[in-house]
Amino acid sequence: MKPEEFRAAGHELIDWIADYRTRIPQLPVQAQVKPGEVAGKLPSRAPQEAEPFGRVLADLDGIVVPGVTQVQHPRYFGWFPSNASLSSVLGDLATSGLGALGITWQSAPALTEVEEVMVEWLRELTGLPSSWKGVIQDTASSACLVALLAARERATDYCEARGGLQAESAPLTVYTTPHAHSSIPKAVALAGFGRDNLRFVDVDPVTYAMRPDALAAALEADAAAGRRPAAVVVNVGTTGTTAVDPLARIVPLARQYGMWVHVDAAMAGSALLLPEMRWLVDGVEGADSLAWNPHKWLGTVLDCSLLYVADPDQLIRVMSTSPSYLRSSADGEVTQYKDWGIPLGRRFRALKLWFQLRLDGVEAIRARLRRDLDNARWLAGQVASTPGWRILAPVTLQTVVLRHEPAGLVSETGAVLDASALDAHTLSWVDSVNAAGALLTPSLLDGTWSVRISIGAEPTERQDVEKLWSLVRHAAESS
Amino acid sequence: MKPEEFRAAGHELIDWIADYRTRIPQLPVQAQVKPGEVAGKLPSRAPQEAEPFGRVLADLDGIVVPGVTQVQHPRYFGWFPSNASLSSVLGDLATSGLGALGITWQSAPALTEVEEVMVEWLRELTGLPSSWKGVIQDTASSACLVALLAARERATDYCEARGGLQAESAPLTVYTTPHAHSSIPKAVALAGFGRDNLRFVDVDPVTYAMRPDALAAALEADAAAGRRPAAVVVNVGTTGTTAVDPLARIVPLARQYGMWVHVDAAMAGSALLLPEMRWLVDGVEGADSLAWNPHKWLGTVLDCSLLYVADPDQLIRVMSTSPSYLRSSADGEVTQYKDWGIPLGRRFRALKLWFQLRLDGVEAIRARLRRDLDNARWLAGQVASTPGWRILAPVTLQTVVLRHEPAGLVSETGAVLDASALDAHTLSWVDSVNAAGALLTPSLLDGTWSVRISIGAEPTERQDVEKLWSLVRHAAESS
Repeated sequence: MKPEEFRAAGHELIDWIADYRTRIPQLPVQAQVKPGEVAGKLPSRAPQEAEPFGRVLADLDGIVVPGVTQVQHPRYFGWFPSNASLSSVLGDLATSGLGALGITWQSAPALTEVEEVMVEWLRELTGLPSSWKGVIQDTASSACLVALLAARERATDYCEARGGLQAESAPLTVYTTPHAHSSIPKAVALAGFGRDNLRFVDVDPVTYAMRPDALAAALEADAAAGRRPAAVVVNVGTTGTTAVDPLARIVPLARQYGMWVHVDAAMAGSALLLPEMRWLVDGVEGADSLAWNPHKWLGTVLDCSLLYVADPDQLIRVMSTSPSYLRSSADGEVTQYKDWGIPLGRRFRALKLWFQLRLDGVEAIRARLRRDLDNARWLAGQVASTPGWRILAPVTLQTVVLRHEPAGLVSETGAVLDASALDAHTLSWVDSVNAAGALLTPSLLDGTWSVRISIGAEPTERQDVEKLWSLVRHAAESS
Repeated sequence: MKPEEFRAAGHELIDWIADYRTRIPQLPVQAQVKPGEVAGKLPSRAPQEAEPFGRVLADLDGIVVPGVTQVQHPRYFGWFPSNASLSSVLGDLATSGLGALGITWQSAPALTEVEEVMVEWLRELTGLPSSWKGVIQDTASSACLVALLAARERATDYCEARGGLQAESAPLTVYTTPHAHSSIPKAVALAGFGRDNLRFVDVDPVTYAMRPDALAAALEADAAAGRRPAAVVVNVGTTGTTAVDPLARIVPLARQYGMWVHVDAAMAGSALLLPEMRWLVDGVEGADSLAWNPHKWLGTVLDCSLLYVADPDQLIRVMSTSPSYLRSSADGEVTQYKDWGIPLGRRFRALKLWFQLRLDGVEAIRARLRRDLDNARWLAGQVASTPGWRILAPVTLQTVVLRHEPAGLVSETGAVLDASALDAHTLSWVDSVNAAGALLTPSLLDGTWSVRISIGAEPTERQDVEKLWSLVRHAAESS
């Protein structure tokens, strides 16, 4: 495609996006398609001849839009916020338009250096230790795998340079809680530790946070059995209930056993922009790494996850390569981000952070985050003061976990009398709410279904939360 | 940012990109900045207040553009092509504008299903086995790691569900050649095999392709020593010389030992769109996986790598997770791409392929690929017929590997007489060519510097190759 054709089509597409974002509140939140329906609308082979742009745009409207869940919708309260601020969309467009190749500093110095400055801007904004260094990864899943690989190698004095993990004798063990994100056990498995060597440490029954005494007991038992504790993944803001493991109490235990401490703050990291929320990571100066996702609540369009490490050399020693065709005279003086993660080729992701922070400004972003926290507290207050309703976990962030507990299914003291009827009731009223134009995603908590109301879509205002609460009450109480 | 502000800024940015792409031929190919120069131009902290778009755009012009190597330049002949076709840029803009969340089929059915159709379109276009299934990964580095993790788990009857790789006794071994991309030994190390268990199999001295007899001998020796051959990475188009390992002769050996066969066709995959080039992967129906990068020669803007597998269940068994909050009634009927790779959250990358294939059409893409192959053959002919010049490897794809070998440094029979003087001469004339407005990246071959002329930037026409050859001759012959 020539630049002049791009110019014409690009203007059309910009208008389409502006119009689409404007009309999102009128769209169903949930994708309305059946399995195979989207694929069934596409030809089975690629076109031999070029098609006009209008036809592609029509399919974007007619096939793609109805085929995605509208996570930019003001009544999207599912999973976690997945904002794609239009300021960051512009930054990402600049990235694609430039078409730079991020393989070494030399191939695109600005790609590396704008990234260095952006992770430093966000380090300062989130109050992380000033000596820490950051890198952009695609997701917190990858960031956790990278951290666990570094932990594995440090614990084995860099076995990768010898016989690898398979040559090690005493097994390495990893610790987290049953509330850790599914990507944590996955990373443990991929890094080769084996699920037998992953310990799900008990949590507090009210806060769902890791119990340091249970961690201490697990560590002691493993060490006594000749196993080698290698890493603990500390969850700051779990997916189910936004539980916060007590980092400051975990760090001394980790130090005692020489373990790597990785903090998974995928969702909660955005909250660290607010000084009043920094208690979430009290003790972080004793950790080795922390990952969080600007592509969630902060609103940088997917994918953008930040991995901070206390000592980048511990990543580089595990990840670095230096083939002849990638060497240059600048090598000793510059950062080579290819050695801080898995992929060699890297997209210029820092531009979307740069555009977003500059075009929106930090104060406006902070005001939005505080708006969402206020909305969650308001909703929690409503739930707590309404008979038949119960808040199931501390409302630490912007997510309220609740249940409607009708008499007959739950006793006056809160004991579940009929678990399967309660589950059926919960899933049924969630379906009604979702059918009525919102999106909630339920979650199992202590074996019973709970409902997560995760507030924080960029356009979600108090009135949307009020409307949701009225929908929720109507659906549950009238069923 | 509100939709109307986005509309205004978006139009400006589209015009900026169209203008930028138009003026690239007037820009220096190589980034002209010193280490730290870009970072030094940025403030040390994020702005509290929003800045006007014009200021950001001015910095894109004044700081970013001079800070990247212009890989979209007609005289870019470095590393490998890294095209970012404007049609795919539009697709990627649509992705960001939609802001869909790719975590499960349910969260964005179209993201999954358009991806399924795009990998099928490209499977058909490249002639891969019709039973194979594909998935989009970020890079071939990640795709190779995923393949080696699947190989590791298959070879150990899925040890991740038990004690992990660290509980295995007989070591697993992996095979490739010394010409494999640096990401292959890196993936071997990250997967926990250990560098001691990676065999660099000898190559043919003329073609630089793996010698099947050397592979057979290595396998036999390892098996006799009680080691377990787990995987072979077959290189189709190496980075140094675009060497092609003989897949059809490797497959029977792999089958004999039950090894996973992964084909790394990161660069060469684009050539498979041309039926006359399909010989590159003769025997592929006996392989387990193949990865190639549309974000190279094909021109889909970074990052977009395709991983094809003969049996997706072998990925899913290793990678799958199913937390309660990600379950839905459609689970049994749909593809869950989160279980085909490392990240949970996935960007809607299929749109950039969809836009590119539809807006450019397959015939035009094939014509461009053939143009580049013709240009490489023309250049090879010039080099071969010019005294003092030598082609160092078969010109299989669009890369010509050559050296200027002045009398006195190399004998008439081709023996290097003074290796360090020859290296100095080579690196010196490459520097001159690069200073004169092109980009070549040299590479070590058999311990001596060679020069790679990698043709295939989207705007590179015959006249650009002619001009380069004249620059190259002038620089080398007059020095």
